[in-house]
Amino acid sequence: MSTVYDVTTWRIPDDPATTAHTDIGKIINSIIADVKAQQTTQSSRPGAVIYIPPGHYSLKTRVTVDISFLQIKGSGHGFTSLNIRYNTSDTSGWWEIWPGASHIKVENTDGNSEAFIVQRTGDPRLSSIEFRDFCLDGVSFTPTQNSYTNGKIGIRFASDNDACKVTGMGFVYLERALVNNGADAFDATDNFIVECGSCIELTGASQAVKVTNNHIGGGFTGYSVFAEGAEGLLVTGNNVFPRGRSVVHLKNSNRCVITANRFQAFYPGMIDTEGTNKENLISSNHFYRVPEGYPPMQGNDNGKDDLYGLIHLVGDNNMISTNLIDYNVPADSVKPSGATPTLILVAGGDANFISNNHCVTNIATNHVVLDASTTNTKILDCGTTSQIRSDTDSYTLRPTP
Amino acid sequence: MSTVYDVTTWRIPDDPATTAHTDIGKIINSIIADVKAQQTTQSSRPGAVIYIPPGHYSLKTRVTVDISFLQIKGSGHGFTSLNIRYNTSDTSGWWEIWPGASHIKVENTDGNSEAFIVQRTGDPRLSSIEFRDFCLDGVSFTPTQNSYTNGKIGIRFASDNDACKVTGMGFVYLERALVNNGADAFDATDNFIVECGSCIELTGASQAVKVTNNHIGGGFTGYSVFAEGAEGLLVTGNNVFPRGRSVVHLKNSNRCVITANRFQAFYPGMIDTEGTNKENLISSNHFYRVPEGYPPMQGNDNGKDDLYGLIHLVGDNNMISTNLIDYNVPADSVKPSGATPTLILVAGGDANFISNNHCVTNIATNHVVLDASTTNTKILDCGTTSQIRSDTDSYTLRPTP
Amino acid sequence: MSTVYDVTTWRIPDDPATTAHTDIGKIINSIIADVKAQQTTQSSRPGAVIYIPPGHYSLKTRVTVDISFLQIKGSGHGFTSLNIRYNTSDTSGWWEIWPGASHIKVENTDGNSEAFIVQRTGDPRLSSIEFRDFCLDGVSFTPTQNSYTNGKIGIRFASDNDACKVTGMGFVYLERALVNNGADAFDATDNFIVECGSCIELTGASQAVKVTNNHIGGGFTGYSVFAEGAEGLLVTGNNVFPRGRSVVHLKNSNRCVITANRFQAFYPGMIDTEGTNKENLISSNHFYRVPEGYPPMQGNDNGKDDLYGLIHLVGDNNMISTNLIDYNVPADSVKPSGATPTLILVAGGDANFISNNHCVTNIATNHVVLDASTTNTKILDCGTTSQIRSDTDSYTLRPTP
Repeated sequence: MSTVYDVTTWRIPDDPATTAHTDIGKIINSIIADVKAQQTTQSSRPGAVIYIPPGHYSLKTRVTVDISFLQIKGSGHGFTSLNIRYNTSDTSGWWEIWPGASHIKVENTDGNSEAFIVQRTGDPRLSSIEFRDFCLDGVSFTPTQNSYTNGKIGIRFASDNDACKVTGMGFVYLERALVNNGADAFDATDNFIVECGSCIELTGASQAVKVTNNHIGGGFTGYSVFAEGAEGLLVTGNNVFPRGRSVVHLKNSNRCVITANRFQAFYPGMIDTEGTNKENLISSNHFYRVPEGYPPMQGNDNGKDDLYGLIHLVGDNNMISTNLIDYNVPADSVKPSGATPTLILVAGGDANFISNNHCVTNIATNHVVLDASTTNTKILDCGTTSQIRSDTDSYTLRPTP
Repeated sequence: MSTVYDVTTWRIPDDPATTAHTDIGKIINSIIADVKAQQTTQSSRPGAVIYIPPGHYSLKTRVTVDISFLQIKGSGHGFTSLNIRYNTSDTSGWWEIWPGASHIKVENTDGNSEAFIVQRTGDPRLSSIEFRDFCLDGVSFTPTQNSYTNGKIGIRFASDNDACKVTGMGFVYLERALVNNGADAFDATDNFIVECGSCIELTGASQAVKVTNNHIGGGFTGYSVFAEGAEGLLVTGNNVFPRGRSVVHLKNSNRCVITANRFQAFYPGMIDTEGTNKENLISSNHFYRVPEGYPPMQGNDNGKDDLYGLIHLVGDNNMISTNLIDYNVPADSVKPSGATPTLILVAGGDANFISNNHCVTNIATNHVVLDASTTNTKILDCGTTSQIRSDTDSYTLRPTP
Repeated sequence: MSTVYDVTTWRIPDDPATTAHTDIGKIINSIIADVKAQQTTQSSRPGAVIYIPPGHYSLKTRVTVDISFLQIKGSGHGFTSLNIRYNTSDTSGWWEIWPGASHIKVENTDGNSEAFIVQRTGDPRLSSIEFRDFCLDGVSFTPTQNSYTNGKIGIRFASDNDACKVTGMGFVYLERALVNNGADAFDATDNFIVECGSCIELTGASQAVKVTNNHIGGGFTGYSVFAEGAEGLLVTGNNVFPRGRSVVHLKNSNRCVITANRFQAFYPGMIDTEGTNKENLISSNHFYRVPEGYPPMQGNDNGKDDLYGLIHLVGDNNMISTNLIDYNVPADSVKPSGATPTLILVAGGDANFISNNHCVTNIATNHVVLDASTTNTKILDCGTTSQIRSDTDSYTLRPTP
């Protein structure tokens, strides 16, 4: 029996009229059912590969992936900017108006939010499922094309999983592109996840996840990268561009590494933290904060003001070092009006270590601000004495000479 | 003649009974023989691609790769944890008990250790051989399933080679997963190499190798990443987790770069060095050292005590900077009992430069210790005076304020 | 209609004699014409995938890619060193003398320089075109095999483009391997681009480009990585080896990030800048400068002397930090003779921040030199007072203790 399937040639035994073009979800579910029918013992379940050739497909039925080792694979991430398209008054002369390559329009008519859900009960955890090289397209936002909302989710891992991978994918115009609940050694690498409300969300506890070499750009309503309860997340080599409400948001996450990324944002709170976050390393990143430049979107923001901190830190023993932090906002756009913007705010916690950051600003800013509640912060080589503000005596400062 | 082969459809001319499922090694050797029979002049040897669809295959005969430009490719790394399986008393209710995807059980009956050996005499060196997206599984360890020993090797490059690549692969339960002797511009990227004794070993002299974006986790008997005589090795973007005896071991290796990795370990000597190692850069990594937490494995260690150094350095002019070093071992587990653990031990060498490391420890430690034999070490911003110990006067210290 | 094409089975309707082996360019143009004939409305243009199996192909006609979402894909980058081959007196006993895998000899007879040009007028920009896993080979240089010149270009993106990708490719013996004019969110990742005059050139304005995880090595006549007018270029995880005239050249480029790379070069100006370059971050890289060691090439250089700076910086607010800079050139090879070589030259600009670099040199050097025109440079922890030279009073220095 072959373990190689093609969505365009598969027919559902009792529903030969459905094709991948009319409902690729139903087709893939049928293929998975066939895999399960062929692989019936616990020592004969190697999985399969399902190929999606270039084409426009509609997904009306959610796919449930409940077998390990399944690879779903296309021939290209197929992104094109729907944001530009929908903000162009006349596209009648355009060459193309849809994303492409192995392109799935997420158009569930089954009452579900997800295009793909990965979920299984029992043991072991689902392992080594791979999504690669195709496009998940939410088609449109509501109530307006600039809202980043439509209730649609691209892929949701809903039960604990190990060694899974999402790579080479495109995600566009989904409210939530990729959600993984309970990830172990998960890889999100080499993807193009932009013009989505939230891009990568690690919910539940995760460990040892890598987010590497991606283009990521969320909406003002959502997260570019979100991690709750993460242990040892590695975020490196990514280009995260606007307009997510943050570029990386950590909630009760420990020992994560955020290094060697290029970050651009339109709002404060580029790195945002909540709860208690310990022993995270944020180094060798480039932060660039500018105002929103795109007229259709200039009315939006993430609700935070410039006192929130470009990096907003709560937690203990974190290290922020060797970053270039670039703030370039006209004085009359600063919020609250007339305030001195904060680049790094230590809003709470003990023994944070902030060193060797080069801050470049068009107006006077506080490079580091320490809340009165904080203790034992060390600040080395992050600015002159006048560029550091502390509301506590419990800190050590070595200003730049 | 086609250059695209499928192991499931190939038949050996004089042995039609053998299939990829009974001996994929013999099948691939026969395919390689066919490639050589088709490609007979020095200007007509483009190689071929051998595809391994998802399935469970047994390898009983070692594959010898002695042609350039061969790509051996499957549809998924197929890892599942055998360590959890073998430490579960009853797996009768499990969905699956084997790794999967393009899954090769390494079961040599030919007296050889390797599943794949890459080797050729004469000129030029073998070039551009690629292994990608399949699973090499050693099946079981002996004498116990927690020993990390079985004498099996996944892939061994045994002669000088250029521009080869191992990517997207899974390796599990092999004593030695991947060995490359004499590598030039080799890539080990995007692999899942865990639950193996040793994971990546660069023996002989190598140059310009990249180890990037991998999940790696060796056994207490072996190495996660080992390099001997390396020049310019780049290790970046990896998640290296326990329980290798070290996360990176350098022996007589120079000008290597270890940066932007997440490292977790159960033993001292996370970065270990022997011989003379010069001008290496270790920066922007997260080190996390905790005790072994998994009961079946708690009796094991790598034989080193907490005075060995979480980073053990011998050599000259190395730079260790901007790392977060996190040591969290209960006082009563420290070895020798009552000792003050060492985070960075400069055990020998001249002019090492250790700066801007943030050390987080649950008990008092020496952040840096200088052996009496060392000379001209510079230590900047790595702790207070009381956290640095030197047994020589030949050093410079700027403590943190 | 299938969207999956194979160059070896495609026949041109009015030219059945041409094959991929005789002119793969003409074949691919015919396939693209077929795609356009099949995909005729702006909502039915998902593109296609064109597969190039392993083989030696000749390209005599330039390919014009003027559709979005096209993936051109082979089965291996196929590099082998032509430089070694052409500098070996007798290769008659060699196993192979050509590159391989999916190997295209660039032999245009159509008067064009490029093997592939990507270009379209009108809206939207071309999106999500992918070149992956094949080899573009310029075959030979003229007038000598060591000249790095032959007028040939591998791939040139000639009009604005979005979200395109070049990955897994091999480029060899092309004067210019990969040129992208007007790139947005472009990826050059996991390629092998060596023995070419110039390797990666980002001309026109680009934004948010990633150059990650590549092996790169240009010729003394050209650039390994060149960016003009770039905004937010991310260069990380690369191994850039000799002998490019520079490893990264920035011209009027801002907010770029060069981090976690291994760089080796034979000439001064490893990082070179011209025009005005602002707020770039250069951190956690290893720089290694040695003399050319290969006898056939020892007569060449890039025309710069050792006072030019291993890093030559013009611009404002750039940060150079946490690099290991290794200079190992015999005293009698220094140019001008008897000069004290410069490692980092700030040749012009304001408020550059140079900190925490470890400089390792076999002879006395100036670690940092400030031109008289420069203002407000900060130099922290880069050497002793005697290792820093300033021709201006407008700077701040904290020497290493």
